[in-house]
Amino acid sequence: MQYPPGTAFMDGEFVPMAEAKISVLDWGFLRSDATYDVVHVWKGRFFRLDKHIERFMRSASRIRLDIGHGPDQLQRILAECVRRSGHEDAYVEMIVTRGVSPTFSRDPRDAINRFIAFAIPFGWILRPEQREDGLHIAISKVQRIAPEAVDPTVKNYHWLDLVMGLYDAYDRGAPNVVLSDGAGHVVEGPGFNLFAVRAGRVVTPVTGVLHGITRLTAIELLRELGVEAEQRPLGEGELRGADEVFATSTAGGVIPVTRIDDQPVGDGAMGALTRQLVERYWQAHTRPEWTTEVDDIAAMPQAAE
Amino acid sequence: MQYPPGTAFMDGEFVPMAEAKISVLDWGFLRSDATYDVVHVWKGRFFRLDKHIERFMRSASRIRLDIGHGPDQLQRILAECVRRSGHEDAYVEMIVTRGVSPTFSRDPRDAINRFIAFAIPFGWILRPEQREDGLHIAISKVQRIAPEAVDPTVKNYHWLDLVMGLYDAYDRGAPNVVLSDGAGHVVEGPGFNLFAVRAGRVVTPVTGVLHGITRLTAIELLRELGVEAEQRPLGEGELRGADEVFATSTAGGVIPVTRIDDQPVGDGAMGALTRQLVERYWQAHTRPEWTTEVDDIAAMPQAAE
Repeated sequence: MQYPPGTAFMDGEFVPMAEAKISVLDWGFLRSDATYDVVHVWKGRFFRLDKHIERFMRSASRIRLDIGHGPDQLQRILAECVRRSGHEDAYVEMIVTRGVSPTFSRDPRDAINRFIAFAIPFGWILRPEQREDGLHIAISKVQRIAPEAVDPTVKNYHWLDLVMGLYDAYDRGAPNVVLSDGAGHVVEGPGFNLFAVRAGRVVTPVTGVLHGITRLTAIELLRELGVEAEQRPLGEGELRGADEVFATSTAGGVIPVTRIDDQPVGDGAMGALTRQLVERYWQAHTRPEWTTEVDDIAAMPQAAE
Repeated sequence: MQYPPGTAFMDGEFVPMAEAKISVLDWGFLRSDATYDVVHVWKGRFFRLDKHIERFMRSASRIRLDIGHGPDQLQRILAECVRRSGHEDAYVEMIVTRGVSPTFSRDPRDAINRFIAFAIPFGWILRPEQREDGLHIAISKVQRIAPEAVDPTVKNYHWLDLVMGLYDAYDRGAPNVVLSDGAGHVVEGPGFNLFAVRAGRVVTPVTGVLHGITRLTAIELLRELGVEAEQRPLGEGELRGADEVFATSTAGGVIPVTRIDDQPVGDGAMGALTRQLVERYWQAHTRPEWTTEVDDIAAMPQAAE
């Protein structure tokens, strides 16, 4: 098995990715009982690190997981993973799993929770050289797991619906997918939120979706452009009839969507508002209020704390 | 970290449970993109091994995972795990995960699927010495993930709804839980199916649930007693008003449920039909047509094949 170059933090130690392994008995695996967050580093700077750590801590608390580290300690661990990885651009994941009960009971309250972090090369939903062509998606009949079952605002690994949606899209000739809510609305795709633009108005779903930090960033950048995004259910027909569609994700930022179910969105090229947002999004990676230099974060007091 | 005594099979080798670890990058973990099955061994005999292997192979095929072993090879691997573990009574799990893409793409079709098996001590939802007292459950407002999102007949690790349901039950003083479908019906609990008995008629949910092998066994044992279980949606009120309720699971067989939301089921004691089934279930563990002696399964042609 091959591993991407990078550094992980587990059990108080920094290890190469090839050694970052969890027990097959960890409930984070056997019950997908875990939460996580992913922040990216671009040209040596974390992007909106505080927002990611804030959401991670809120997610953990909602599903009653103890991270075992406060926000400052988390920053130091993540920065140290990035430094040791040597990556200028990185995808930095923090995870807390339920762990295992030392008595081997079935009771999650008995488990010793487990924190893991790692930094690997930056990942893309759509590589920059494909950006002009844009993302092609299918709308799948597979429904996203409902909020009444699993709270989507708690970032989680319940992805079988998204993966089966991907296979559904592949079968229909599309390389990516968006799932629906079973009531005529689209919700989200594998790792991204969705925005539709029509006659200057912008809509993005708000229920049944992760409240992505890139989604938030897009909403804030739109506001700077004088456009207030409407956060409400987005109909399938509304999406198909949009002038412009874009996706947002930590794995690639603002991403134009140019084909849906093999039909062009608008004239099939990246829209003007999307282009403006893509540019602003990447320019924002030097804003002092949104970024933190990896090297400005203090070293860990002890490497093996 | 402590590990239960047992033996795992990974990467063609048999290893102690402490060494049975998967990469944190495996999509079986990061996307819960995996399927599994659990068969038990009781007094040195597998119980309904063929049914478990059949379901495991069907599950893998439905979500497009390649186990990499046929049924005979699977039997041999599982038997070897049990023999090496030394357990007379064991909980034997077989797993296939999506694995990781060697190019680190996000495309599940690129991944190299991964097979894992292990044998650990037999696990109980309710220990035999607690059987007379029975299982106490709460009916949670947390909804089970709908079949339109994730096919529940493909045994999967999407358990955050069940775990959050457990915490909901704990908060209300109940040690276990059953989830609902959001339309007034109960579906399943963490690792068990449910049956309700009223005036000699037996009902068990059929949609939105795993088609458990112990559930099937209970249906077949009931048939031997001249009772045909109705497989249809089971209303919450129907469950509360039942004369007898029982759960079925590989982790403990037929399990009497004696309290629901702190109210007794019937007179609060194990019901007569439930008692008959519990006895028949354990007696059935010597039936030649339902059991396979671990030592009757041939050794692996090569330990490290």
